Amino acid sequence: MTRVGVIGATGYAGAELVRILWGHPDVELTVITSRQYAGVCFDALYPAMAGVVPLTCEAYDPERICAQAEVVFTALPHKLPMGIVPELVARGKKVIDLSADFRFRELARYEAAYQPHSAPELLAAAVYGLCEVNAEQIAAARIVGNPGCYPTSILLPLVPLLAGGLLDPQTLVADAKSGVSGAGRGLSLTAHFCEVAESFKAYKVAVHRHNPEMDEVLSRAAAQPVHLTFVPHLLPMSRGMLSTIYALPREGVQAGEIRACLEDFYAGRPFVRLLDDSRLPDTRNVRGTNFCDIGFRLDPHNRRLILMGAIDNLVKGAAGQAVQNMNLMLGLAETAGLMAAPYPL
Amino acid sequence: MTRVGVIGATGYAGAELVRILWGHPDVELTVITSRQYAGVCFDALYPAMAGVVPLTCEAYDPERICAQAEVVFTALPHKLPMGIVPELVARGKKVIDLSADFRFRELARYEAAYQPHSAPELLAAAVYGLCEVNAEQIAAARIVGNPGCYPTSILLPLVPLLAGGLLDPQTLVADAKSGVSGAGRGLSLTAHFCEVAESFKAYKVAVHRHNPEMDEVLSRAAAQPVHLTFVPHLLPMSRGMLSTIYALPREGVQAGEIRACLEDFYAGRPFVRLLDDSRLPDTRNVRGTNFCDIGFRLDPHNRRLILMGAIDNLVKGAAGQAVQNMNLMLGLAETAGLMAAPYPL
Amino acid sequence: MTRVGVIGATGYAGAELVRILWGHPDVELTVITSRQYAGVCFDALYPAMAGVVPLTCEAYDPERICAQAEVVFTALPHKLPMGIVPELVARGKKVIDLSADFRFRELARYEAAYQPHSAPELLAAAVYGLCEVNAEQIAAARIVGNPGCYPTSILLPLVPLLAGGLLDPQTLVADAKSGVSGAGRGLSLTAHFCEVAESFKAYKVAVHRHNPEMDEVLSRAAAQPVHLTFVPHLLPMSRGMLSTIYALPREGVQAGEIRACLEDFYAGRPFVRLLDDSRLPDTRNVRGTNFCDIGFRLDPHNRRLILMGAIDNLVKGAAGQAVQNMNLMLGLAETAGLMAAPYPL
Amino acid sequence: MTRVGVIGATGYAGAELVRILWGHPDVELTVITSRQYAGVCFDALYPAMAGVVPLTCEAYDPERICAQAEVVFTALPHKLPMGIVPELVARGKKVIDLSADFRFRELARYEAAYQPHSAPELLAAAVYGLCEVNAEQIAAARIVGNPGCYPTSILLPLVPLLAGGLLDPQTLVADAKSGVSGAGRGLSLTAHFCEVAESFKAYKVAVHRHNPEMDEVLSRAAAQPVHLTFVPHLLPMSRGMLSTIYALPREGVQAGEIRACLEDFYAGRPFVRLLDDSRLPDTRNVRGTNFCDIGFRLDPHNRRLILMGAIDNLVKGAAGQAVQNMNLMLGLAETAGLMAAPYPL
Repeated sequence: MTRVGVIGATGYAGAELVRILWGHPDVELTVITSRQYAGVCFDALYPAMAGVVPLTCEAYDPERICAQAEVVFTALPHKLPMGIVPELVARGKKVIDLSADFRFRELARYEAAYQPHSAPELLAAAVYGLCEVNAEQIAAARIVGNPGCYPTSILLPLVPLLAGGLLDPQTLVADAKSGVSGAGRGLSLTAHFCEVAESFKAYKVAVHRHNPEMDEVLSRAAAQPVHLTFVPHLLPMSRGMLSTIYALPREGVQAGEIRACLEDFYAGRPFVRLLDDSRLPDTRNVRGTNFCDIGFRLDPHNRRLILMGAIDNLVKGAAGQAVQNMNLMLGLAETAGLMAAPYPL
Repeated sequence: MTRVGVIGATGYAGAELVRILWGHPDVELTVITSRQYAGVCFDALYPAMAGVVPLTCEAYDPERICAQAEVVFTALPHKLPMGIVPELVARGKKVIDLSADFRFRELARYEAAYQPHSAPELLAAAVYGLCEVNAEQIAAARIVGNPGCYPTSILLPLVPLLAGGLLDPQTLVADAKSGVSGAGRGLSLTAHFCEVAESFKAYKVAVHRHNPEMDEVLSRAAAQPVHLTFVPHLLPMSRGMLSTIYALPREGVQAGEIRACLEDFYAGRPFVRLLDDSRLPDTRNVRGTNFCDIGFRLDPHNRRLILMGAIDNLVKGAAGQAVQNMNLMLGLAETAGLMAAPYPL
Repeated sequence: MTRVGVIGATGYAGAELVRILWGHPDVELTVITSRQYAGVCFDALYPAMAGVVPLTCEAYDPERICAQAEVVFTALPHKLPMGIVPELVARGKKVIDLSADFRFRELARYEAAYQPHSAPELLAAAVYGLCEVNAEQIAAARIVGNPGCYPTSILLPLVPLLAGGLLDPQTLVADAKSGVSGAGRGLSLTAHFCEVAESFKAYKVAVHRHNPEMDEVLSRAAAQPVHLTFVPHLLPMSRGMLSTIYALPREGVQAGEIRACLEDFYAGRPFVRLLDDSRLPDTRNVRGTNFCDIGFRLDPHNRRLILMGAIDNLVKGAAGQAVQNMNLMLGLAETAGLMAAPYPL
Repeated sequence: MTRVGVIGATGYAGAELVRILWGHPDVELTVITSRQYAGVCFDALYPAMAGVVPLTCEAYDPERICAQAEVVFTALPHKLPMGIVPELVARGKKVIDLSADFRFRELARYEAAYQPHSAPELLAAAVYGLCEVNAEQIAAARIVGNPGCYPTSILLPLVPLLAGGLLDPQTLVADAKSGVSGAGRGLSLTAHFCEVAESFKAYKVAVHRHNPEMDEVLSRAAAQPVHLTFVPHLLPMSRGMLSTIYALPREGVQAGEIRACLEDFYAGRPFVRLLDDSRLPDTRNVRGTNFCDIGFRLDPHNRRLILMGAIDNLVKGAAGQAVQNMNLMLGLAETAGLMAAPYPL
């Protein structure tokens, strides 16, 4: 049993990490921390966990973390992780960071979207934790930058097709929709019940910070500079994300080639479910799971490709993929702790 | 007071018609019919209306309808209206049909998407009731084909820009999202509570029957054959519709021209609210109203246009626009009966 | 046209007042105030109102209020109204206060539940605005203390039966359920979307401040000291309230007597709908309306009475009843501005 | 590994059984049946299960069931199980029936509420599967009648207090609220999304068939005939149940005695969580779990007891308790397969 810790366990992604790690057969969750709730039992914040998870939140103390865990998950707001990850790595810990701090290979791109980076040397060492794309590098990594939720739902459908040269990379549009849990546990009118119920809207249109994160990966896949037009929307539900992606296939590309490309790329990858032509991705079907469901159609009139990716924003879009990354880093079965049958409703 | 009747008053669009017409200052709702609930009080089906709307559903009887009403709304499934509208028109009634039966100018397009048309001569006489686009013809019409909900939310943002030559008409994509009431009051797993809650998905991808309806209008506006890539989605909420539309502006077109074009087109039109740059359309803000809220952004990296239209699918997308059509046909104030302040939440 | 103003127009009850007053045929809403949003357009806070309600929030200024309005609604947190109502009344204004400050006849009861009262002399002059119970006094009042939402849903079913001596007043239990809008627009985890969705719970069990408000009125009706066991619950929806009330009828009382008592009491009262035996109150049927739907059953085994009252907590439970009070105070039709057909869904 | 089967696996309770049994460490789910979907893959009905549960629904065939399973769960509508359980038992199988057919000890009570019983001799042999109350008999049973959801949420709080003589058994009222999944997967207007959202109402007031089921158990616990006044309500959410119970304690009974009684009764029982005075049961905290959360308060003015029980209607109220019964019958750890950490939201 490998011992693991979660830094920042009381937000929604952190709590989901606790849920998954608690049920993981090969690791032991030994320590959880919280800036705001140090000394508070985890089940006082999440009473559902009473009688199940008997942990108490601690203040962050690198000495203690390093004594208690070989793998550390950091589920903190952007900017905080780059302040603490260097020390953890220096002490030989493997780190999976759920913020944006270690997602970028290109420093300038990160700094343009976020702020100056205080540990640029580690940025170079970090691996972007999109498991189905970077599995080998992840297995060897000391630091993994866990992808954003939107990027996961968009890159998994797109990367194989771009890498395979099937699409015109200058025609990409992603219309993405997320449940409210993506906005976190912090209070805001945006997440106030009466404002969300019976509401649907776009936000941060074409200026969301997940955009440069995706552009970097897409550009690499296409081997040319790519910019995705990206429009996120807020759904009146708690968890779930569906991205509908539009692109023009290259001249002459048929549906069969698209399917074959995706099938090949994801052959043997347990968490991508490529749907057949009779079905379409639905957030309900990935709720609570680490799956990404992918489906596509060609518009019969103009052969434009419509590609869809559905994930649970808190699982494959955050905590689940983080555990999948850990599995890869530790040489465990990739599915360990991640294959419980989900609630049927 | 003009006397009006509603044929098919017990579905959601029909009930919404009853609500609006009941509060209309210039008309009297004298007769409502139902195939399934003839003889049943309206408030037995919609108990909210007890003490407010004392009407009883009747079986459809053209004699009686014609004796009771000068304007008739038909809120029936497709195919039924073309069987009864000819007689109503022959007797001198004005008809506003909420089905697809009188929306098309091109018979072949209708028949390809629906079925053979039994009253093609009336199709030619009918006017497509997109009020802000066809106001003059509507004022003179005997039959109005009330637009579909998706078309209303997509055509109002697009038509001015296409007609103004600001967009490349071969680049149009509409990613549309609708509340469940669009599926009506008929039972189906698709509208079963436990299947809808925490669910979001696309359906009828690129094969929805509103697609040819829109293509016809867009082609006319662009003065060239246009095909819109159209993907509808189902939202886990009752009413509301937001369409996010993507298009490439013609070379050199600036944001200011787009705004000016929309402002000019909708100057003086009370039901289109063009939002300024600080705001984005939200279905919540049009709930219960006849407004279409329009907003747009240009992607700063590639200048792709992102255009959004929000409506209440049952009001501007059905019953409200039908009443607006009636107002135009009768020479009443366009806003009559349609400007009540909506529920703030 | 009587000119009216709303002090505190930006909370949910205040906004609902604006909605209703804006559509009222006999009054003109001339002034709205907000402590937090002075100088801000109302439609910046409630964008649904753009193009409909062109008012701007002002800072509270008694001079200006008194110049602009003959009737003033105060929709402020408890304690604030008693600081400003005395001056308004002294200047001859009629005031309807939506807080608890003027609901009690017994000073000690108010002070035990809230805080010391700074205008106890006005407390004596104020009338409890439960319209169907106190219509005559309301018509003559200068100050009306508009009832709480829970009390409205519980007192309307109970008062006639207690006053009629049909129930044992020592056996009263009210199990009440409210939509989240009752908690207002202020941010809290309790109203955070992801915490409310798929959640149902009781709160402030037997210690809610609406309890003494009800005890006072029930004691008066029963002509003996009465204490209601009162348990409020939070529903995962925006608006609507249903109270299920349990009581033992006095020996020998039959269902027919209960129905007759309620029928007599509410004969000619437009906003109480006593349902027949085939139907039960549903919050959905009162949404957006000023109705209180009342139904009852006798448990066939022990003849315990089960009495239900459903209201919209923001309308009959707040803003609608306030306008009904105004109508009574001004001698207008009781239903003026309050009989618009509600949304069918 | 004990082999188990589920008869009727495609309704919500059946699907939840599949979910839980699939993750159970000590049993193997070998066969699932469906009348309606024989030959259909389970993941065609519940696409969430694709890649996780590879089972296919079969037609019911007792030969095959008996060859494949030692324990059989029947999740069928009332009346069907009594037709097939006798044969299964005769062949030596242990059966856990989720319908009402084997819940009653008193034949007359069953037949008054349901229909004539075709296997009354087995009724006598069956054990009522309320695990925390009847654990010993369950361990020895061949047939267990798995309790209804409402009864579970009400009996667990009440039985210890009645058995301990702390309450007046003639004063019991249960105001219960259930999520819509309790109505099953069958289509009805009651479960139609637009009719449920923003709706709350009572139904089957004092005539629900769970009432005699509870009366039988309560009478036994109190050693006198007891009738509970029972009013179920429908919540606008998918899963979860909270029952608020009112009763008069016997003269002089203090809060401490009530707590001590419940603590003693449930000492060492892993699935009952008795909340301390700082907390109240919330359906959200039991979602997806087999817990019953119990809390109580005494009304300070009249010392009436307010007792609350929260469960997930599909887990502790159906499939989870059924598995708990199986664990007891097979001598497994009571918590086996039932202690996964739940989704935090």
